[in-house]
Amino acid sequence: MLQNIYKLTTLLMISKNKIKYIHSLELKKNRKEDNVFVAEGHKLVGDLLGNFSCKYLAATQEWWNENPSAKADEMAIVTNEELSKASFLKTPQSVLAIFEQDNSPVDLSIIRNSLCLALDDIQDPGNLGTIIRLADWFGIEHIFCSPNTVDVYNPKAIQATMGGIARVKLHYGSLLELITQLDNYPVYGTFLNGDNLYSKDLSPVGLIVMGNEGNGISPEVERLINQRLYIPNYPQNRATSESLNVAIATSIVCAEFRRRIL
Amino acid sequence: MLQNIYKLTTLLMISKNKIKYIHSLELKKNRKEDNVFVAEGHKLVGDLLGNFSCKYLAATQEWWNENPSAKADEMAIVTNEELSKASFLKTPQSVLAIFEQDNSPVDLSIIRNSLCLALDDIQDPGNLGTIIRLADWFGIEHIFCSPNTVDVYNPKAIQATMGGIARVKLHYGSLLELITQLDNYPVYGTFLNGDNLYSKDLSPVGLIVMGNEGNGISPEVERLINQRLYIPNYPQNRATSESLNVAIATSIVCAEFRRRIL
Repeated sequence: MLQNIYKLTTLLMISKNKIKYIHSLELKKNRKEDNVFVAEGHKLVGDLLGNFSCKYLAATQEWWNENPSAKADEMAIVTNEELSKASFLKTPQSVLAIFEQDNSPVDLSIIRNSLCLALDDIQDPGNLGTIIRLADWFGIEHIFCSPNTVDVYNPKAIQATMGGIARVKLHYGSLLELITQLDNYPVYGTFLNGDNLYSKDLSPVGLIVMGNEGNGISPEVERLINQRLYIPNYPQNRATSESLNVAIATSIVCAEFRRRIL
Repeated sequence: MLQNIYKLTTLLMISKNKIKYIHSLELKKNRKEDNVFVAEGHKLVGDLLGNFSCKYLAATQEWWNENPSAKADEMAIVTNEELSKASFLKTPQSVLAIFEQDNSPVDLSIIRNSLCLALDDIQDPGNLGTIIRLADWFGIEHIFCSPNTVDVYNPKAIQATMGGIARVKLHYGSLLELITQLDNYPVYGTFLNGDNLYSKDLSPVGLIVMGNEGNGISPEVERLINQRLYIPNYPQNRATSESLNVAIATSIVCAEFRRRIL
């Protein structure tokens, strides 16, 4: 209790400069320069503390009371009004934090023994965050992203992960190089002329490639896909919208892979 | 050809007042007052023309050339610059239209013979639009929405349907009253303590209730759900995020219902 009171008295206010700095982290180049990102809200910040190094933590007195052991390089106690000035959210929550990015590399042997996702130029941060959240649900621990895929540390993407980013690792780089190195490995993709997802043999390990929102999988990557899938619509052959949202398609495919081995 | 040239010469420019009017339709009360909504883009407007009465159509010369038979009460030819002033999109497309809302009632006998969705206070327009798009894919033609569910005619919701709104009908009203009237009918919902979706008997007809993004299904509606489902995560009993995005959960459940009868 004494320790708690002591800590609260040493907490800083949030300065105008700090608010300006937080806003600057909406841009990828600024995040990259300092190797950091912003996360907000009880659940998300709670999931990230312990998994990511925390540089800065601004929270209301109530939050600090509930989280007395939370630690960061710099800590601040703020009012809801101050928080709303710093926040990227329409409805700010009781805590905002700046974490260090995790850009640690992954060993190819890990991929060879698990089910992974590859994202080919996903542009919408909400879609990316939603895919990370569902990957977490389905125990998919690694997602490979083409260099032009939206930055996972975009505030909208981070918020949409709902904490999934604490457990799912993202790796940016050439999908062509990755798949070429995996040589003779099951690489899946969804196409309107693919095989019925529900009746096709699915490997418990493999790479599932999902494409850009407007253009789908790029032709270069498509050439390396050796398992073409189709998500059946209903009734079959009925005129419907020509596609599903990419996060929706990802979830149906991942659910089916996991359904087979449950 | 002559007819086409004639039409182009009679097309109006877009006025400042019209741009102001279009912007005013971002608000539900303004849309409701005039019983209209805005849709943008080649695919979406194309799907809606013929299914909804078109009040106003503003498009580039290229679009008019490609769609010589498109008709609306009022038509305009616009430059890309003019379109970007009127548009709700970051990247305006070649056409923007104002359609009349379709608020026609539905007969209860239709519901009794099909698989339908019920949305209990979905708040995010992107989620609603995405659910309409996937309902279209899975041949679900009617969605019932609680009065506090976000307005389907919100521009973000309409855009996210990607044309699905041309084939899927939405009905706003009390879910309690609806389900009570359906008396002794299979009503499904997803819960963390529900039965495994993959092993449970699923009726080919029924109502699938999906809840609010933060709070799930309301307690009053939950009491009327007689089939509790759970979407298995993987590996089971692993610590993961506690939930899936509501559109993702909807897609996995709908896919499973359709998978059984394909």
